[in-house]
Amino acid sequence: MQSTPPSPEAVAYLAAVGTALPGDPVDNAMLAKTLGVNEEWIDVFIGTRTRHFARDLITGEVRWSLADLCAQAGERALSAARVAPEEIEFVVMGTATPDHLMPATVNQVADQLGLDQLPTYQLQSGCAGAVQALELGRTLITGGGYGTGLVIGGDVCSKHLELDRDLSGAAPSDLVNYVLFGDGAGAAVLTSEPRGHRLALRRVLNRFTGLGREPGQVIDWFGLADRHEDRQAVREDYKAIESAVPVMAAEILWELLEELDWSTDQVDFLLPPQLSGRMTRRITEQLDLPGAVEVSCVAETGNNGNALPFLQLERLLEQMTDGQRALAVAVESSKWIKSGFALEKV
Amino acid sequence: MQSTPPSPEAVAYLAAVGTALPGDPVDNAMLAKTLGVNEEWIDVFIGTRTRHFARDLITGEVRWSLADLCAQAGERALSAARVAPEEIEFVVMGTATPDHLMPATVNQVADQLGLDQLPTYQLQSGCAGAVQALELGRTLITGGGYGTGLVIGGDVCSKHLELDRDLSGAAPSDLVNYVLFGDGAGAAVLTSEPRGHRLALRRVLNRFTGLGREPGQVIDWFGLADRHEDRQAVREDYKAIESAVPVMAAEILWELLEELDWSTDQVDFLLPPQLSGRMTRRITEQLDLPGAVEVSCVAETGNNGNALPFLQLERLLEQMTDGQRALAVAVESSKWIKSGFALEKV
Repeated sequence: MQSTPPSPEAVAYLAAVGTALPGDPVDNAMLAKTLGVNEEWIDVFIGTRTRHFARDLITGEVRWSLADLCAQAGERALSAARVAPEEIEFVVMGTATPDHLMPATVNQVADQLGLDQLPTYQLQSGCAGAVQALELGRTLITGGGYGTGLVIGGDVCSKHLELDRDLSGAAPSDLVNYVLFGDGAGAAVLTSEPRGHRLALRRVLNRFTGLGREPGQVIDWFGLADRHEDRQAVREDYKAIESAVPVMAAEILWELLEELDWSTDQVDFLLPPQLSGRMTRRITEQLDLPGAVEVSCVAETGNNGNALPFLQLERLLEQMTDGQRALAVAVESSKWIKSGFALEKV
Repeated sequence: MQSTPPSPEAVAYLAAVGTALPGDPVDNAMLAKTLGVNEEWIDVFIGTRTRHFARDLITGEVRWSLADLCAQAGERALSAARVAPEEIEFVVMGTATPDHLMPATVNQVADQLGLDQLPTYQLQSGCAGAVQALELGRTLITGGGYGTGLVIGGDVCSKHLELDRDLSGAAPSDLVNYVLFGDGAGAAVLTSEPRGHRLALRRVLNRFTGLGREPGQVIDWFGLADRHEDRQAVREDYKAIESAVPVMAAEILWELLEELDWSTDQVDFLLPPQLSGRMTRRITEQLDLPGAVEVSCVAETGNNGNALPFLQLERLLEQMTDGQRALAVAVESSKWIKSGFALEKV
């Protein structure tokens, strides 16, 4: 059942990245005050210092939709790549939190970017969605006959952010859902020939590995029929995540290295999973890639799901020079997806 | 901006199809009685005679999740194709109504089917989602190095079905959302070499065409923060749909014929858009393909979204003989996507 990997020679290129974070960063003092929770607990238990929200924490007003953020990120990626909207031949987007069930948010984004008459795909996925979107973009270019495409990832958790709830007596397993997440979006321009930053996407790993495993995280939506039911919409098995993710992250890393025939000292940058400031530190320590520079963002951006790999890529691009190599690792702890990718600046 | 289509020689094969409809058909008399609406109005205005619901109309009990229906359809497709689960190398699923935001329903389906260690993709889409899933499956096979995959489409509208609401005074634009839809799922096994029914997927059309156009349909979800707001979750511009869909359907048909270099008298079967019994009749009349046998299901199954093309395919397979050709047309009226595909039994 092991899938035949596409030919390693099949390479697409990442020309540029753009990102969008809504509003000013919200620090732990502000978050603690708004939610009525302990600031030190956020510092120590989560280890994330700031995050951004599409909703105003004071008034509750929704200031940016997911489509707004994704279009902004897309526009910045196009501009950075010096690619005109007319050159874009497909859009692939990954998100766990679409603005609506229909229309798919990717089509609202295409509209905002002035795109038309092209295929659009929206993948429903958590932390692995951005990697899945990159893999789908790569496949469309290397095997689908396309030359230039836009790949987007983003999440807005606003609809689940109950600002009027009193959290002073809430259990940590409940509280964590209020302090872990953030909102944001990112985008990348993929091309069939090297352009812009000339980052060859050497390999993508994307593999469901959840057979017989309980989900580590469930995020629900409510419909007209069940919306007044008294149930939790976000549930996490934090213990399962803490024990499984570091192991899977190491497995992904070693599998990528082996497939690419790269040794550990040939990896210049590592983009580790971005769960929270504290969890990411713990995972990275265990990955044992001492020669690689860590590229992380979650401590400043919060866990904004499908935006994270693009936020990491933006930081990577500032540092990477010709011939250097980078490996990214992401784990979707919802129903357990191993994912990652390998980049080389040519 | 017109996309370069993949090479026409790039062909994947449809080996078999399986479908799943929940429970017994619900007829208009039963539906009228449950909802407190006029039976004759459903007969005349919608023209759909029966549909299936995953929820019990009397007790409100949810009897099948979307994952349940999709797994059932997938199992039947595998069995009909005589393909073992171990042979499946990827799963692609299209839906507008996932069971949860996370995990993606496709991963629950993979789990139910005993699949593991393979890539899974879930596309968020309305009526065009099944076609997008077929196109993604075709691309993974013809350009991604995969040999055998499972493509699934399904929708369950149960979460929006308010059974306790008094509809006796509701406007037709509101009522239509209660009488148009149904639940169901379908699946197809795609292969790189002809197997089973040996249907060559000659071409797939999938193109966003919504730049600057208002959505014809919006389906919302509620979060913890906005679930008690008094707003409509399903909104349709039925006039826009009635005027645009027949025109787009004709454009799709002629574009496919031209790209394939097929003449109208070489088309043996037509699978037209499945909005409702009445709308489908009107569209088909205008498509002017007199020599082709129409393959429709919506009058018996209701509009169950991403399941529809698979339900049509199942009926097609019963009739198609060697050398015959079929064209399918689907329009997503949400943010306007033109889609369709061409099949030939080899």
